[in-house]
Amino acid sequence: MTIVATQPRRIRGVLAPVVTPFHADLEPNVDAFVTHCQWLVENHAGLAIFGTNSEANSLSVTERLRLTEALLEANVPAAAMMPGTGASSLTDAVTLTRHAIQAGAAGVLMLPPFFYKNVSDDGLFAYYSEVIERVGDARLALYLYHIPALSGAPISLALIERLFKRYPTVIAGVKDSSGDWGNTEAMLVRFAGDGLDIFPASEAFLSDALPLGAAGCISATANVNPAKIHALYSRWQDADSVKLQEEVTTIRKIFQPLPMIAAMKHAIAYWSADPAWETVRPPLTQLDGQTAQALVTQLEKAGFTMPGLGVRAV
Amino acid sequence: MTIVATQPRRIRGVLAPVVTPFHADLEPNVDAFVTHCQWLVENHAGLAIFGTNSEANSLSVTERLRLTEALLEANVPAAAMMPGTGASSLTDAVTLTRHAIQAGAAGVLMLPPFFYKNVSDDGLFAYYSEVIERVGDARLALYLYHIPALSGAPISLALIERLFKRYPTVIAGVKDSSGDWGNTEAMLVRFAGDGLDIFPASEAFLSDALPLGAAGCISATANVNPAKIHALYSRWQDADSVKLQEEVTTIRKIFQPLPMIAAMKHAIAYWSADPAWETVRPPLTQLDGQTAQALVTQLEKAGFTMPGLGVRAV
Repeated sequence: MTIVATQPRRIRGVLAPVVTPFHADLEPNVDAFVTHCQWLVENHAGLAIFGTNSEANSLSVTERLRLTEALLEANVPAAAMMPGTGASSLTDAVTLTRHAIQAGAAGVLMLPPFFYKNVSDDGLFAYYSEVIERVGDARLALYLYHIPALSGAPISLALIERLFKRYPTVIAGVKDSSGDWGNTEAMLVRFAGDGLDIFPASEAFLSDALPLGAAGCISATANVNPAKIHALYSRWQDADSVKLQEEVTTIRKIFQPLPMIAAMKHAIAYWSADPAWETVRPPLTQLDGQTAQALVTQLEKAGFTMPGLGVRAV
Repeated sequence: MTIVATQPRRIRGVLAPVVTPFHADLEPNVDAFVTHCQWLVENHAGLAIFGTNSEANSLSVTERLRLTEALLEANVPAAAMMPGTGASSLTDAVTLTRHAIQAGAAGVLMLPPFFYKNVSDDGLFAYYSEVIERVGDARLALYLYHIPALSGAPISLALIERLFKRYPTVIAGVKDSSGDWGNTEAMLVRFAGDGLDIFPASEAFLSDALPLGAAGCISATANVNPAKIHALYSRWQDADSVKLQEEVTTIRKIFQPLPMIAAMKHAIAYWSADPAWETVRPPLTQLDGQTAQALVTQLEKAGFTMPGLGVRAV
């Protein structure tokens, strides 16, 4: 390809799809959300708020706007934010995207519409085009979100190319949550050289992805292990990178077999000594006690901690 | 089971998951929506507005409330309505359900949350419970919506039983869009005698389902063929029911292999001579010209028409 993306600002590095805390009555816990975002930024993570791991689709549009406003009021830097703004509803996607731009977010991470299955590339192209045209804002930096296991609507390489050709100043990159390294590699080889920022969804791929031009990663476990993942990101060419990769992958592998959101929330609840963090919105469920205890045991054995998060230091 | 549902009002018969018309700019066409609902009621169909075939999840909550209000203002009977009110977002589901009850709807058809996959029955039970408790209205008649191919969250027989036992005055029935007669039959055998209203999602099953106590059907093609499907529903014990079943199944089979929503919209556009009816919201796409023409040819050959719909009489 010969098109080069031209967004003036670009966010790179390690981003956390920020977990959303709830009160016992399932209302969003705004204060805990702000505090967690501040901790993430202090630990060098960008804020992919309202991603899959944020239970974003379990929230209303109004709740998402309110949480974003709270971050802005607390002076959390909008330049660190890449809110999820995709939705089944075209109308909602436009509302969320407009708000993110007005907030000054670095970009938006946009799920395809995820209710209908086996939709065509033409239909997905029309969806993204319609959002882009309706938003009609030169500041828009749009990251496509490939997560076929949940969306049921894969973002094919052909669709990326078609959208990038049509909107070279808008399409900024792709998050690849396929979990398939072959797919991430194909995206990097085909698009990274032309200026698209490709983010794999796991730090386990960082050492392989960064030499091919990956922009970083947007990874669930950046919610709990941001500083170490950032260390690997920033020192991947250093002598100790093999050791750093092993360390972060070890922690990742402890979380990965579990229901990820519940497991991360348990870790945060445990290390912040705030049991309210366990709460998830249905249809998700908390970890059972035995699984939760085994998780902590494994993490402690691996030397894991969350410094600065709360009172429970290891 | 020994529990008997006790809702004072029950809707039975043939319901259409009402297709939602859009203007060329993809805004809902409120007038055309009201007109189509009026035509459906005149032709003995109930109004399962905001179902899968309504592109409901491509609409915002606000758009859905506005369309409902327009029906009420036009004196379309609320007792004929079973709005879809399920959503990935718990908050949205509560908002939509409350509004439906206040509007006087006969019941609500509630999708499970459909973003996360492989969620547990515990998680789905918690979701429905939370909606029921938050709504907290004795008038609520809730129909569970089993459509695993799109929701990714099957409503198992065990979950139905558990919810019905816990909320016997709220859980009113199930729509089975599995397309699997064995599953519909199992639902009927297990729950119809206890007072749950089971609706298969296709009129092709009516002759088999009604003798087992089915409450009717909620079928896409009731949008285009309501009177004949209602004739079968009301005369299934008559001598001509075999012929009626054959006739409606013949029409169903013409639509079924096609993208159903686009195909029904083309039929309505054609027989009402209003090409604006073709419009779908992305990610859906319209029928291509050749497919559209072949559809009309097949339908006309089968003697299909939509009397009273518009100017184009056959």
